[in-house]
Amino acid sequence: MTSEDGTSVDETESEKKLSKKELNKLAKQQKKLEKKTEHAAARSEENEKEEEEDVSKGHYGTYGIIQSTERKKLDFIDVNDVLINLEGQEIWIRGRLHTSRIKGKTCFIIVRQRMHSIQGMLFVGNEISKQMLKFVGNISKESVIDVRGVVRKVEQEITSCTQREVELHVTQLFIVSAAEPRLPLQIEDATRIKEEGKSADDSSLSVVNLDTRLDNRVLDLRTQTSHAIFSLQDGVCELFRNTLKKRGFMEIHTPKIISAASEGGANVFEVSYFKGSAYLAQSPQLYKQMAIAADFDKVFTIGAVFRAEDSNTHRHLTEFVGLDIEMAFKFHYHEVLETIGAVLIDIFKGLQAKFKHEIETVGKQYPCEPFQFVEPALILKYPDAIKLLRENGVEIGDEDDLSTPVERFLGRLVKEKYETDFYILDRYPLAVRPFYTMPDANDPKYSNSYDMFMRGEEILSGAQRIHDASLLTERAKHHQIDLEKIRAYIDSFKYGCPPHAGGGIGLERVTMLFLGLGNVRLASLFPRDPKRITP
Amino acid sequence: MTSEDGTSVDETESEKKLSKKELNKLAKQQKKLEKKTEHAAARSEENEKEEEEDVSKGHYGTYGIIQSTERKKLDFIDVNDVLINLEGQEIWIRGRLHTSRIKGKTCFIIVRQRMHSIQGMLFVGNEISKQMLKFVGNISKESVIDVRGVVRKVEQEITSCTQREVELHVTQLFIVSAAEPRLPLQIEDATRIKEEGKSADDSSLSVVNLDTRLDNRVLDLRTQTSHAIFSLQDGVCELFRNTLKKRGFMEIHTPKIISAASEGGANVFEVSYFKGSAYLAQSPQLYKQMAIAADFDKVFTIGAVFRAEDSNTHRHLTEFVGLDIEMAFKFHYHEVLETIGAVLIDIFKGLQAKFKHEIETVGKQYPCEPFQFVEPALILKYPDAIKLLRENGVEIGDEDDLSTPVERFLGRLVKEKYETDFYILDRYPLAVRPFYTMPDANDPKYSNSYDMFMRGEEILSGAQRIHDASLLTERAKHHQIDLEKIRAYIDSFKYGCPPHAGGGIGLERVTMLFLGLGNVRLASLFPRDPKRITP
Repeated sequence: MTSEDGTSVDETESEKKLSKKELNKLAKQQKKLEKKTEHAAARSEENEKEEEEDVSKGHYGTYGIIQSTERKKLDFIDVNDVLINLEGQEIWIRGRLHTSRIKGKTCFIIVRQRMHSIQGMLFVGNEISKQMLKFVGNISKESVIDVRGVVRKVEQEITSCTQREVELHVTQLFIVSAAEPRLPLQIEDATRIKEEGKSADDSSLSVVNLDTRLDNRVLDLRTQTSHAIFSLQDGVCELFRNTLKKRGFMEIHTPKIISAASEGGANVFEVSYFKGSAYLAQSPQLYKQMAIAADFDKVFTIGAVFRAEDSNTHRHLTEFVGLDIEMAFKFHYHEVLETIGAVLIDIFKGLQAKFKHEIETVGKQYPCEPFQFVEPALILKYPDAIKLLRENGVEIGDEDDLSTPVERFLGRLVKEKYETDFYILDRYPLAVRPFYTMPDANDPKYSNSYDMFMRGEEILSGAQRIHDASLLTERAKHHQIDLEKIRAYIDSFKYGCPPHAGGGIGLERVTMLFLGLGNVRLASLFPRDPKRITP
Repeated sequence: MTSEDGTSVDETESEKKLSKKELNKLAKQQKKLEKKTEHAAARSEENEKEEEEDVSKGHYGTYGIIQSTERKKLDFIDVNDVLINLEGQEIWIRGRLHTSRIKGKTCFIIVRQRMHSIQGMLFVGNEISKQMLKFVGNISKESVIDVRGVVRKVEQEITSCTQREVELHVTQLFIVSAAEPRLPLQIEDATRIKEEGKSADDSSLSVVNLDTRLDNRVLDLRTQTSHAIFSLQDGVCELFRNTLKKRGFMEIHTPKIISAASEGGANVFEVSYFKGSAYLAQSPQLYKQMAIAADFDKVFTIGAVFRAEDSNTHRHLTEFVGLDIEMAFKFHYHEVLETIGAVLIDIFKGLQAKFKHEIETVGKQYPCEPFQFVEPALILKYPDAIKLLRENGVEIGDEDDLSTPVERFLGRLVKEKYETDFYILDRYPLAVRPFYTMPDANDPKYSNSYDMFMRGEEILSGAQRIHDASLLTERAKHHQIDLEKIRAYIDSFKYGCPPHAGGGIGLERVTMLFLGLGNVRLASLFPRDPKRITP
């Protein structure tokens, strides 16, 4: 089962032994590889013959494919750690050749390592041969290289690198893995701010369009902006878990393959399941609730969520990562609502404290106001939101749902009035919520449900759920849902269930809105939408 | 997108306003609910009329459906925290009625809360009326109840509860959510050790078979054993992440919907994707590797993995949780292999340190030798394993793969010789590994690949991957894989990629084997196999 490759047992059994022919072929492949390596090592020798003497002999070249034949111990240092305190020391770094430029007898290179970069310098002289300079100058951009050099303080700050006070005076340089010379996109172009590219006075700067970037995602993900985005996204998950763990929550895992499109039937992907068919879960909600009915009390789950919705917008994905919470409460669903609000505020605070550099890095390409919030979270009642909208000229009925533009407008009004980019809208009209939402006991027009917003866009939807089997049955009937299809779900509440509430957060949306990216695809490593399932 | 319910916009738009008829109906439902509550409150009054005087009036009854109408603040205490130091204090607990038994004027109840339980006692007298005793005696098992009582030290240890030194002298008791009187299975039966049920001298004790348990999973999950299993499983994930984070790994999320059955084509689920079709990823491997090619350096991901394999065994699931690691290394894949070994040992150590109570609890139902391991992890070379097997009578060729029974036998031999339940088998024959496995440079019959085992069963499969596009192409051709289908994958290595290795761990298998459960379904909240996709 855990075999990573998914190769069936039959497949592997049938080719247990290699035939002699295959062995020979492999031996030949091996020889080729060895030759490649020899060839590379021989390059300096060849140069020697040509030009008599190469003082750099053995100090540059290509490793060939690293096949774990020896376990060299070189002291590599992270580019980020190459600081002024290392001045005068000779160190190794492994990174990408970001750019190189030969100017007479000098070669400048920039080596990039994730969000960081450093300048290297080679000068033809006693240690660096002409041949080595030529070799370095010919390495294609994006190749992975090992560089040895002495750390030197620079006279003038280097503005094109993150390491501004030091550079490396290169003594050795080897190619670990060469890039093809022609790249489908240039890293600099993919990092460029849109407005910069568009500006009339410098029309030569090109900007890569989103589709090209996503088509070549492996290159696009190498930009400092992408590394900052996914580093921060990793932080969202870690902060989410840590703050929930502190509050006594437990992590669970719910199935993605389900037997019935239990939540309405629309927008669900169908899967061939052996001789029958199944569906992909649109949320872990039913299963989180069953966990509550099984006494798990406070649970969360992080996992893929699937929506077969043909929406081609900046904020819709067909597959995204859900950060889901479900929690039993004692008497009032606000026990849960306040907990979720506090969890999100803990995340925002953590991001601002721990990811300053990442936020700055992303801000260079996607400029944006810092994310503002108040603590505790602002809770706005639905009728008050309607009132605020009407006061500002929006015509809307008491029980109307909010359209996306109205949500955004409301976000702006809330920001002006309460100075917060994050707020909770509580007590939605019952009519606009799903069947399992608990009605408001005092006014059946409303319900014990809520959405949460960042910069005027919804990031979470949640509610007190109906935990009573007979009320749940009534409400399902009212919504004309086929009771047979949700039998197992309803039955979960027959044997006693504590009152509970919860909600689901879209990870990519939180990332996008916190950083002001403008498109949710930028916050998904390999985004899926109605038109894209590759790479 | 984050709307939890998956309701389409159209659906909700069309029913924005409730009709008057619907409103009336809702109002009626509301009235019914209120009546239920009143009725419950009135029960003591009725009793009063019948029997003149009820000293317990107002101290028992049913809350009715908790709809968040008021925010009562009662000081609830976790059952686990009800200890001798609270002697004499009056406290509230919320839990399940596990059992109740009336004996004359006394009623004994056991209240269960996840892994913990406490005895409660009611005695008819100045504070407890006959009516209240009768009410309590009639509550159906598994109902959720609120109990108020005074903590009292007991003379004789209570062996049937986890809280053995104290009991509660009940003063108030309310039903929060009633269970139906007939349960599809009894919690005690689902907790019983198999052998106990089978014993000849007490044939009346019944054991619930696995299918019945899984059919009624919400009840089955309420057992102390289940709570212990999933609490420990939560620990596996937390330990996995924490030890990786300390080592500089970053969490990523990879798509489950993929465009091509890239890893061979067999055992893959097909999904209808709008007007076309797609597949469910059999592992995150290709995407983890692309993350490495995009400079993410050290990544892990936790998520659903799908295998359309028609295997109905104790260790196969069609959907399971993969704990996946991928890591760039400098010169030798053992840098990665040793890291993964150390990660697993950190997990084992953490489990034994933090989950003593859970391991004990599970051990009562599934008795098992404690999990044994050596540090650092034992690394066995494949040829040495073959030698060991041959010395012990197994006929096996140098390049044969290990069958499941042989793996188990090898596990026993290793345990005898090295006193460890965990070991790494390194340098598998190339012929039994997938196309992207890096061949051994010195002997092309072998490869830079490994499996890891717990109690003789495989929990991880991994390898150094080929990071060179042309070698990868050659190997794919050799395996007769359609190159067009893996174009995006191969292309990821064209623009420079550091050497890397990784592996995927099956979460449910680790849980099963650590605890000796004997069936992987017990370690999955809602297991999926070729015959089960519900509940």
